[in-house]
Amino acid sequence: MKNYKIIEVKRSIFEDNDADANLLREELRAKNTCLINLMSSPGAGKTTLLRRTILQLKDEIKIGVMEADIDGDIDAARIIETGVRAIQIHTGGMCHLDADMTRQGLREFGTDDLDLVFLENVGNLVCPAEFDTGATMNVMILSVPEGDDKPLKYPLMFSICRCVIINKCDTLSVFDDFSKEAVEERIHKLNPQADIIFVSAKTGEGFDKWIEWLKTHIID
Amino acid sequence: MKNYKIIEVKRSIFEDNDADANLLREELRAKNTCLINLMSSPGAGKTTLLRRTILQLKDEIKIGVMEADIDGDIDAARIIETGVRAIQIHTGGMCHLDADMTRQGLREFGTDDLDLVFLENVGNLVCPAEFDTGATMNVMILSVPEGDDKPLKYPLMFSICRCVIINKCDTLSVFDDFSKEAVEERIHKLNPQADIIFVSAKTGEGFDKWIEWLKTHIID
Repeated sequence: MKNYKIIEVKRSIFEDNDADANLLREELRAKNTCLINLMSSPGAGKTTLLRRTILQLKDEIKIGVMEADIDGDIDAARIIETGVRAIQIHTGGMCHLDADMTRQGLREFGTDDLDLVFLENVGNLVCPAEFDTGATMNVMILSVPEGDDKPLKYPLMFSICRCVIINKCDTLSVFDDFSKEAVEERIHKLNPQADIIFVSAKTGEGFDKWIEWLKTHIID
Repeated sequence: MKNYKIIEVKRSIFEDNDADANLLREELRAKNTCLINLMSSPGAGKTTLLRRTILQLKDEIKIGVMEADIDGDIDAARIIETGVRAIQIHTGGMCHLDADMTRQGLREFGTDDLDLVFLENVGNLVCPAEFDTGATMNVMILSVPEGDDKPLKYPLMFSICRCVIINKCDTLSVFDDFSKEAVEERIHKLNPQADIIFVSAKTGEGFDKWIEWLKTHIID
C-alpha cells in the first residue's frame, strides 16, 4: 500500500482567482503556516532540491510536501523516502494550480502539525506564473542546462519570485556558455529585489546559503 | 535594422481549434509545404538543433523558421545567422500556439518559396500538446538533463509526436542516472510508433540519423 494519497483536484469554479488567493494567504498566515510555491521547467530539480532541504531541516522544522503533476506519483514517492508527509495532487490535465486547487490539496493534506509546506507546482515556466496559488511565497528554480537566456523569454515567472535558485551548478564546466553574471543581471532587471542563490542539489554545493535563506524567510 | 519581423498574433476566435487545424493542414499539403511543430521544455535545445539542421540541409532544401515566444527575439536572431529566413511570433502571453495563431504567422511569413517550415513552439511540455497547430508533423525534444522520467509526467506530449529527439547526449556521463533504455521503454509504452533519435546538437553526435529521418519524412 502506498503511504501517501493521490487526489484529483477539480478546476476552480471561482471567477476571481486573485481574490481567492489573497483569502487563502490570509488563512495560512493566521495559522502561521508558511506555504512555498516552488516552480520551474520540467526536470530543473525541484524534487531533488526538496529532498536535500528536508533532510537538512526536518529535525528543526515540521515540513510537508504537496506534489502537483498532470500524471504519475513518482515525486510523492521520492519525498516520502525522506520521512516527511507528502501528498500527490493530480491536476486533471491542467498546466498549473490555482488558489482553489491549492485549497483542495491543503484540505485533504491537513497542515495543523506543519510549520512549512512546499507546493511543488507543475513543471512549466509559463502558466504557473499567471495563477496566484495563495502561497505565502513564490520560489523558482532555473537549472544551468536550460541556459542563461531564460529570463528574457519567460519574464513573468522571474518577476514574481522572491528567490531564484540556480540549480545544477556542478555542471557549469559542461555548460560553459552559461554566465552567472548575465543571468543575475537579467533577473535583477526584471525583479531587483529577487535573491539569487547558486546551488547543486545533487552535490550540496552552495546549499548552506539556501538553507539559511529559508530559515530567515519562513517566518515572513 | 533587424532582418526579421516580429509579429504579435491574436488569440484565436475559433471555437473549434481541431477543425481549424485540419483545414490548415490540408492547405499546407495542397501546397506541398511540410510544417514541423517542434516542441520541448524551455532550454532543451530547439534553436541549437534547428541551427545545425539548417546548416546541413539548406543547400538541398528550402527552409524557413517561425519562432514563437512570449517575449524576446533572440531565437529569430540566432536562426537568421544561418542564412535562412525567420520570423519571430509573440504569443501575447499565451503558453502555446493554436491553428489560427499559426495561420497568422504563416500569412505574414509567406511560404511559397519554402519546402520545409519549422514552427518552434513556446518552451512548455504541457499546453502545446493540447492544441493542434495544424502542422503536418509534430516533433519533440527531450534533453538528457531533464531526466528519463518525463514521459511519466507529461504523457500527452510524448503521445502526439512522430519523432522524439533525445538531445544533449554529450552530457550522458554527467547525468549518469539517465537511462536510454528506460526512456525508450516509457516513450514506446505511450506511443509505440514514435521514432526515438539520440543526438547532441552541440557536438553533432548522432545527427546523421536525424537528418536522414527528416529527409525521409519531409515528403509525407
